[in-house]
Amino acid sequence: MSQIDRSIPYSESAARREADEPHSLVARLGVLTLDSGEAIEDLVVAYQSYGALNAARSNAVLICHALTGDQHVANRHPVTDKPGWWEILVGPGKPIDTNRFFVICANVLGGCMGTTGPASTNLATGKPYGLAWPVITIRDMVRAQAALIDHLGIDSLFAVVGGSMGGMQVLEWASTYKDRVFAALPMATGAKHSAQNIAFHEVGRQAVMADPDWHDGRYLEEGVSPSKGLAVARMAAHITYLSEQALQRKFGRNLQDRPKLTFGFDADFQVESYLRYQGSAFVERFDANSYLYLTRAMDYFDLAADHGGVLARAFEGTKTRFCIVSFTSDWLFPTIDNRQIVHALIAANAPVSFVEIESDKGHDAFLLWEPELFATVTGFLEAAARARGLT
Amino acid sequence: MSQIDRSIPYSESAARREADEPHSLVARLGVLTLDSGEAIEDLVVAYQSYGALNAARSNAVLICHALTGDQHVANRHPVTDKPGWWEILVGPGKPIDTNRFFVICANVLGGCMGTTGPASTNLATGKPYGLAWPVITIRDMVRAQAALIDHLGIDSLFAVVGGSMGGMQVLEWASTYKDRVFAALPMATGAKHSAQNIAFHEVGRQAVMADPDWHDGRYLEEGVSPSKGLAVARMAAHITYLSEQALQRKFGRNLQDRPKLTFGFDADFQVESYLRYQGSAFVERFDANSYLYLTRAMDYFDLAADHGGVLARAFEGTKTRFCIVSFTSDWLFPTIDNRQIVHALIAANAPVSFVEIESDKGHDAFLLWEPELFATVTGFLEAAARARGLT
Repeated sequence: MSQIDRSIPYSESAARREADEPHSLVARLGVLTLDSGEAIEDLVVAYQSYGALNAARSNAVLICHALTGDQHVANRHPVTDKPGWWEILVGPGKPIDTNRFFVICANVLGGCMGTTGPASTNLATGKPYGLAWPVITIRDMVRAQAALIDHLGIDSLFAVVGGSMGGMQVLEWASTYKDRVFAALPMATGAKHSAQNIAFHEVGRQAVMADPDWHDGRYLEEGVSPSKGLAVARMAAHITYLSEQALQRKFGRNLQDRPKLTFGFDADFQVESYLRYQGSAFVERFDANSYLYLTRAMDYFDLAADHGGVLARAFEGTKTRFCIVSFTSDWLFPTIDNRQIVHALIAANAPVSFVEIESDKGHDAFLLWEPELFATVTGFLEAAARARGLT
Repeated sequence: MSQIDRSIPYSESAARREADEPHSLVARLGVLTLDSGEAIEDLVVAYQSYGALNAARSNAVLICHALTGDQHVANRHPVTDKPGWWEILVGPGKPIDTNRFFVICANVLGGCMGTTGPASTNLATGKPYGLAWPVITIRDMVRAQAALIDHLGIDSLFAVVGGSMGGMQVLEWASTYKDRVFAALPMATGAKHSAQNIAFHEVGRQAVMADPDWHDGRYLEEGVSPSKGLAVARMAAHITYLSEQALQRKFGRNLQDRPKLTFGFDADFQVESYLRYQGSAFVERFDANSYLYLTRAMDYFDLAADHGGVLARAFEGTKTRFCIVSFTSDWLFPTIDNRQIVHALIAANAPVSFVEIESDKGHDAFLLWEPELFATVTGFLEAAARARGLT
């Protein structure tokens, strides 16, 4: 395991501080009732926005982030100091054009970047929630976002856009708030989580829980962090975000800064070194309990089950226009999962476009340089903007 | 994590005892020089045999086991009390017919079931080797097997058979001991380990090493075992042995003994419960350091690299007859990996058959009920036996 900087105790780290004092706009939204029947008493949603809301309040685009993403779509990240995770797609003159649209992205419910979650201080106890945090669902996340959108005085979103877990939220938005979504653009996602995906998430959760520094979820009170377990979880998950072809192309069996095999357990291969880096970089910015809760929310997602087992019913009567995007080498949410959404939308008489993009980059392709994706997003939003009367 | 029986300390467990006092035949074979340049001073190989060697010593079949297999191919396992791992294929009247062939399977070098490995007591120190054990290669495993075959007075093996890591050994046998292998049957394997496979192995190793009970490999001296880390490693690996279709068919999103989601981190889904069981069952019978060393040996395997980058040269001048078997849903060693072996053999003018078996069972299909596999093995061995003059 490459070394983690221990000069700053985790309890005082920048990531830890973001949970209660985010470098973001913050909305205090009161009580949120959850699918579990429990309630969050003092919901806080941390969010970023880009561009300006027009007078008609008709140009708002909500971006929903993925499992390990956050609200810092198009600005320097306050913890990592890296560029926003979707600057490739979002910004002035970009496919999601902030000169034209008012772009909002909120940290999800259960996240660790300022929206209430297990790392937040529970005002009732003065301690971090930890496992006292309730299990949440994708619909709960979307309810929290809807409360934010109310708070911002926006009746109807021009578009809701997101990939992976973000795509699940887009589908849930289009289903739960049919009148509030003009256009929906879910990508690299599914209407339910598959058995294999649940299995990979379970491995990650067990890796976190196996770390004695997890302390049954009370690690923040102990002033430590289950970094090793969370790094292992991230490494396993990260493989699923790529593709065999991408790994072969990027790394193959290339050795890491050495002329030959060392006959040891150092990272002889570049792919090992890369994975170790992914693991240790992740634990610097992410809360382990958040990881447990957000993976659980994805596992629980099954939009058809919420509608009598018929996915088309989730979209009954919708007037939203949809564009579904999949990537050929995505094995986490393969095209077949995305196509099921398309079929359900057709059965619901919804206007839907479907684009399968040829890419060897795997699931993460939606975050990467994919000109066909950019053209798809640009074209879909352009047509929708015309239909909405946005100039 | 489902509970592991702690009533028996690991230091006294049945699995622990097998490393030094196996329920197997044992051959003491002297010094073994390794690819790393190091040497094992007192090589012990533990093995099982079934059937009888004929007078001409021409009917011996060597079975090479996979990463987490062992020599107990066709008898009750001394630790788990389960049937042998390949009884479906090996036994009287089975495709590998023990009425006809003398079948041998040895625990691999670096294993934990009686052949010298990291869990064995180092006679020089009186302590288990642990990380003082050298990193070994697939070729080292095969050298140890060749020493056993010498010891048994067998000049030429009728057949060498194995899947996955066992298939790597079959390829290495056919390459290193060309005159000693009449027929070779590698299945579900590759001539090298891919970047993605190395990545999954690295996750497993990091999971073991992250467990504080690993104690830098000295856990046997401490009287403990990194069970949690090893269980996580096994869970991650186990997913790769199956296929998305198999997981979907067996489990889908079915709930485990409960009518609805519990909004918690218990194993709500059957697939979670199944994986947890796989993890905890594995740690009862397998040594964590062995897991590190054997995964490393697989990562290091690159038969072409050992022959100037040209795989065909590994088989130059071979007279062995080959049958290569792959499975359509195997994503660990997909058909393309197996086909590369076929192409190299054709280039080397070797007689080779190739069968791709339609199966949704994933990599583990070679261990399961696959009638087309049984017919393939029967047919190939029958034709080879005729060619060898075995009645």
